[in-house]
Amino acid sequence: MDKNEEKTQVEEQEQDQVVNPWQVSSKGKIDYDKLIDQFGCQRLDTSLIDRVQRLTGRPAHVFLRRGVFFAHRDFGEILDAYERGENFYLYTGRGPSSEALHLGHLVPFMFTKYLQDAFKVPLVIQLTDDEKCMWKNLSIEESQRLARENAKDIIACGFDITKTFIFSDFDYVGGAFYKNMVKVAKCVTYNKVVGIFGFTGEDHIGKVSFPPVQAVPSFPSSFPHLFSGKDHLRCLIPCAIDQDPYFRMTRDVAPRIGYHKPALIESLFFPALQGETGKMSATDASSAIYVTDSGKVIKDKVNKYAFSGGRETIELHRKLGANLEVDIPVKYLSFFLDDDAELERIKMEYGAGRMLTGEVKQILTRVLTETVERHQRARAAVTDEMVDAFMAVRPLPDMFN
Amino acid sequence: MDKNEEKTQVEEQEQDQVVNPWQVSSKGKIDYDKLIDQFGCQRLDTSLIDRVQRLTGRPAHVFLRRGVFFAHRDFGEILDAYERGENFYLYTGRGPSSEALHLGHLVPFMFTKYLQDAFKVPLVIQLTDDEKCMWKNLSIEESQRLARENAKDIIACGFDITKTFIFSDFDYVGGAFYKNMVKVAKCVTYNKVVGIFGFTGEDHIGKVSFPPVQAVPSFPSSFPHLFSGKDHLRCLIPCAIDQDPYFRMTRDVAPRIGYHKPALIESLFFPALQGETGKMSATDASSAIYVTDSGKVIKDKVNKYAFSGGRETIELHRKLGANLEVDIPVKYLSFFLDDDAELERIKMEYGAGRMLTGEVKQILTRVLTETVERHQRARAAVTDEMVDAFMAVRPLPDMFN
Repeated sequence: MDKNEEKTQVEEQEQDQVVNPWQVSSKGKIDYDKLIDQFGCQRLDTSLIDRVQRLTGRPAHVFLRRGVFFAHRDFGEILDAYERGENFYLYTGRGPSSEALHLGHLVPFMFTKYLQDAFKVPLVIQLTDDEKCMWKNLSIEESQRLARENAKDIIACGFDITKTFIFSDFDYVGGAFYKNMVKVAKCVTYNKVVGIFGFTGEDHIGKVSFPPVQAVPSFPSSFPHLFSGKDHLRCLIPCAIDQDPYFRMTRDVAPRIGYHKPALIESLFFPALQGETGKMSATDASSAIYVTDSGKVIKDKVNKYAFSGGRETIELHRKLGANLEVDIPVKYLSFFLDDDAELERIKMEYGAGRMLTGEVKQILTRVLTETVERHQRARAAVTDEMVDAFMAVRPLPDMFN
Repeated sequence: MDKNEEKTQVEEQEQDQVVNPWQVSSKGKIDYDKLIDQFGCQRLDTSLIDRVQRLTGRPAHVFLRRGVFFAHRDFGEILDAYERGENFYLYTGRGPSSEALHLGHLVPFMFTKYLQDAFKVPLVIQLTDDEKCMWKNLSIEESQRLARENAKDIIACGFDITKTFIFSDFDYVGGAFYKNMVKVAKCVTYNKVVGIFGFTGEDHIGKVSFPPVQAVPSFPSSFPHLFSGKDHLRCLIPCAIDQDPYFRMTRDVAPRIGYHKPALIESLFFPALQGETGKMSATDASSAIYVTDSGKVIKDKVNKYAFSGGRETIELHRKLGANLEVDIPVKYLSFFLDDDAELERIKMEYGAGRMLTGEVKQILTRVLTETVERHQRARAAVTDEMVDAFMAVRPLPDMFN
């Protein structure tokens, strides 16, 4: 069977949009309802969000209020358990493929920090340096270097060192973690991973071997230094929805090897500046705002690249108002402008044509510059010793306090 | 493509005999010349054996003199390097699928001990408990228990603890070893492992992931506690020829990741009591003599099951002589009877019909009982502390002395 034929079965069923951990593309806007149907997850409804507010005694995070995290699997069961007084832990991760993170990369980490603070739970963060070494053909040394650099950006998001373990696969694979990898691998056929991930016969076996590596942090026994004797601790995974295939596989396997299925809470993709047909690329610099960008670069990128829903002429704009459905400045503000009233005002004024794209872009530039500069200050304070401390294999005695 | 079609490509090319790490079968006797051609290794000729004697100042091991180790890859280059005063190391292993070893399992270890003593070189022994867990559907705990039990039998072969590191994959995979696994996996496509090992789409991905695990002990950098800074140390692998597929793959990959190709010295299969159409099974007790068998059991098995080349009647036997080509007692004696003159006498007398099968079986029973009882005494002296000591991740400062 040749490569294209195999692809046919998997991806071109949904030819209008392709969403997997390595590719997010669509002919038009991503159809998230279709994705929810296709993947078989649930929409995150307001009753669940209300429950989060009630259980944690905090207002819901902006990413919850605005539907950035919009889908889930078994999130209700996590809340049930929490309400019964049971603990859980968070697991998220990053594939370190680039030196600097862009704003889209920050989204799951900002949200995970909120979850950690709100629920007071431990967190494991996987840096898949092995994955990036295999997919991007980076050297092991370069993948490991990028993992440490990315760890600094992650730490800069404000995680609590008494509740957070960051690990890289090249450092940590082995022992109980490797045993769980073998347990998972035994339960998944090659045909199955072809169906889920679209691998072909010409792909190297490193790719075929990788899904269990991303699966097993879902199981507490992969972290004996943290969760020894707590094999039934539940796991909640905040991630972008393109990671769902890994965890569909994981959830399929979990009960067969005696573990809970991990729960998921899944986000939209943070759109590229050029418009909402995919997620931003870590390698196309003009498609994204990086956390290393200066205020001037941010201003230039926003002005030059951010796709506008404004009309062709001022007259037409005053008459019709901006098309908010496609407008990137408004989308970006809905991620990063905390003030609900201010956001509503902008959407109202802009949508009615009383505000022009230039004004909205100016507000966006200010908001993003503040966000990025705050991040840069936090990152500058992260030392190598702090990275070592977060990545040390150690017990976390206060992780549930 | 269904399972059978895929098999067609790989195995039924050589339908008369199937030899891979999980299956050795043939319609008649294994055709080793054909196997050498098919695999692309070399026959071990007398000039190489003479060279071993000259370089080590010792008589060649009975397994060399009698062609038990009969094939090789680059063994000459190992001897060249040794002659130039360069060091090398030995790598062999075992898949711990059964409690007790049979005589066939001892063959590579007895020979490896001879090589270690003769060349005064370090040795790594891999116990592939992960492989057996995946192929035999054993639990991790049971695979690890069997690995430790098998380690005792291996230690009983007399290896030098100052030169020998025994490890199990479940214990040792990780760190530098895992990095080499990833390096190897990146260089091998799924189609390639299908071609080499005959995997099908219904096989689980643990199987697809495994070949790099068996490959990387061929590279000194997988053992930083032993060979740090010695990345160009050569490796010689004594094994039965059914393991050749792993090392064909390894040798193909090695230069692409900056390592020497490992050299191999490969043995015939130790035949089943019932005759020379495959290798003994670890699970069919009547096909093999186990190292745990008593003298009485050995006597019964030899008398009842050992396929005889003797003739149907004594008259016919006296006239035609035994057919030594198919006679199992003579085959077994050629492995385990050290005395060349005595073996020649038996073959002469038996082949001429002056000796009967019963007499040869009596000699074989004595020889095997001695071998097995010697092993049992040695194994009884192996303590758990010795196993721990051999398996400790530690430097071996005297390994080349």
